[in-house]
Amino acid sequence: MQVVRTVAEFREARRRLPAPVGFFPTLGYMHEGHISLVERARRECASVVASIFVNPTQFGPNEDFSRYPRDEARDLAMLEGAGVDLVILPSVEEMYPAGDVTRVRVPGLSEVLEGKRRPGHFEGVTTVVAKLFGITEADFAYFGQKDAQQLLIIERMVRDLHMPVTVVRCPTVREADGLACSSRNVYLSPEERAQAVALWAGLRAAEAACGAGERDTDRLRAVCREQIEARPLASIDYLSLADEQTLEELHGLVERPALMSLMVSFGNTHLIDNITLHP
Amino acid sequence: MQVVRTVAEFREARRRLPAPVGFFPTLGYMHEGHISLVERARRECASVVASIFVNPTQFGPNEDFSRYPRDEARDLAMLEGAGVDLVILPSVEEMYPAGDVTRVRVPGLSEVLEGKRRPGHFEGVTTVVAKLFGITEADFAYFGQKDAQQLLIIERMVRDLHMPVTVVRCPTVREADGLACSSRNVYLSPEERAQAVALWAGLRAAEAACGAGERDTDRLRAVCREQIEARPLASIDYLSLADEQTLEELHGLVERPALMSLMVSFGNTHLIDNITLHP
Repeated sequence: MQVVRTVAEFREARRRLPAPVGFFPTLGYMHEGHISLVERARRECASVVASIFVNPTQFGPNEDFSRYPRDEARDLAMLEGAGVDLVILPSVEEMYPAGDVTRVRVPGLSEVLEGKRRPGHFEGVTTVVAKLFGITEADFAYFGQKDAQQLLIIERMVRDLHMPVTVVRCPTVREADGLACSSRNVYLSPEERAQAVALWAGLRAAEAACGAGERDTDRLRAVCREQIEARPLASIDYLSLADEQTLEELHGLVERPALMSLMVSFGNTHLIDNITLHP
Repeated sequence: MQVVRTVAEFREARRRLPAPVGFFPTLGYMHEGHISLVERARRECASVVASIFVNPTQFGPNEDFSRYPRDEARDLAMLEGAGVDLVILPSVEEMYPAGDVTRVRVPGLSEVLEGKRRPGHFEGVTTVVAKLFGITEADFAYFGQKDAQQLLIIERMVRDLHMPVTVVRCPTVREADGLACSSRNVYLSPEERAQAVALWAGLRAAEAACGAGERDTDRLRAVCREQIEARPLASIDYLSLADEQTLEELHGLVERPALMSLMVSFGNTHLIDNITLHP
């Protein structure tokens, strides 16, 4: 595995890689969820490239940019173990050269749910992903379904801008009790960690209710909410049942597959998760 | 020369073209200035691709989108004559698929000079150029220096987003009396056409004054303005002497190469031109 820190070095090394090239972008602090994406890229592509970059523009002023967990040596060992060929760890100055001003935005989709709680977050995401696609010239790019809104926004950007890359949706990887793998899980105290199963418990309860014939959107949300509210350390930031494509909140009865998604806080730690309900 | 109308057909044909691929984007209604760009691409690249697309998002609501001159048969003959291999003439729906929302913007540079007179214009330009770069996967892209602000903005976008394309600046092509070639010149009445030499006359006068030692920015602008004001049908929209990189208006003395640019109206026809002054 070759490790580079500049765009020029990356481009030079990239030229020698056989196509198709699969790309896995990450903020680092790898977990099993990340590795499952790399392994899928490894199976589907002749070459696999990755990036580790904690992107400042997707963090708000009061968010956890500076304390976001980092462990470069461990991350590189995990990527190498999973069969990555080339990884770039660029500096902020390399990604955002002096005088950088260009921004890519996907209005509408970026302003609801997580975007409403985190103004500017998704513009930071689409901008850095556009940069990374420009640098890597990847044929396939792997993103996890855990960040369902992010995935939808990136798919829309790729489609709208006719970017020559195929976005691959990868299923959420979960810990033994169902909690979605996330780099932010390390922030949780043991008590919080135990109660963090609330998100998955709520989503599963709604899925079960839907499977049993419940179609009323308010009642489906209520079924999920009950599970969260049963955990005293959990506080709901949002709980949504929305159209899978437009993310418009649904009212009345569910008639098509719909995205149930939520953000739940434990102290200062905000966790997200989602599930698709099939009525 | 192969002519296609969809992105899928373009990608299919593009795969067979030898690298490097040069790209020439145009709104159509070709003139000599366009052809000089194609000829340069022809000399420098193994393959040359072009697009003809009157992009609605770069026209304001009161601008000339609907009456912008179009002549597809003539354009195609000229492109073929100049040695283009592949040309795409996409529909608006092909470029902006249903639900399209993504926009690329270069704040600051896009809001001065022409951008101040045409709100949203440059966001339309950067968005469509990003789309065209995504479609064509060009190695080199050819733009004329006549649209100096557009060129600067596109260069900034390419640099900031690490797009894998090299932007090539091409000198402005002029008619016999010095008027910059432009598709909009056809809008001019014979009287207006005769007086439209004012732009070049003004720029040349400022260049001569600078060459003779004049460094005062107000006086350099005044030298240019005099030439325009001597033509009764000409009306100045803006006349700027600005930093070549930031487009910040200059005051006091010129100390580095600086961009003198202007927009002048003849009736409803807005013409632009520019020159670099070398103190």
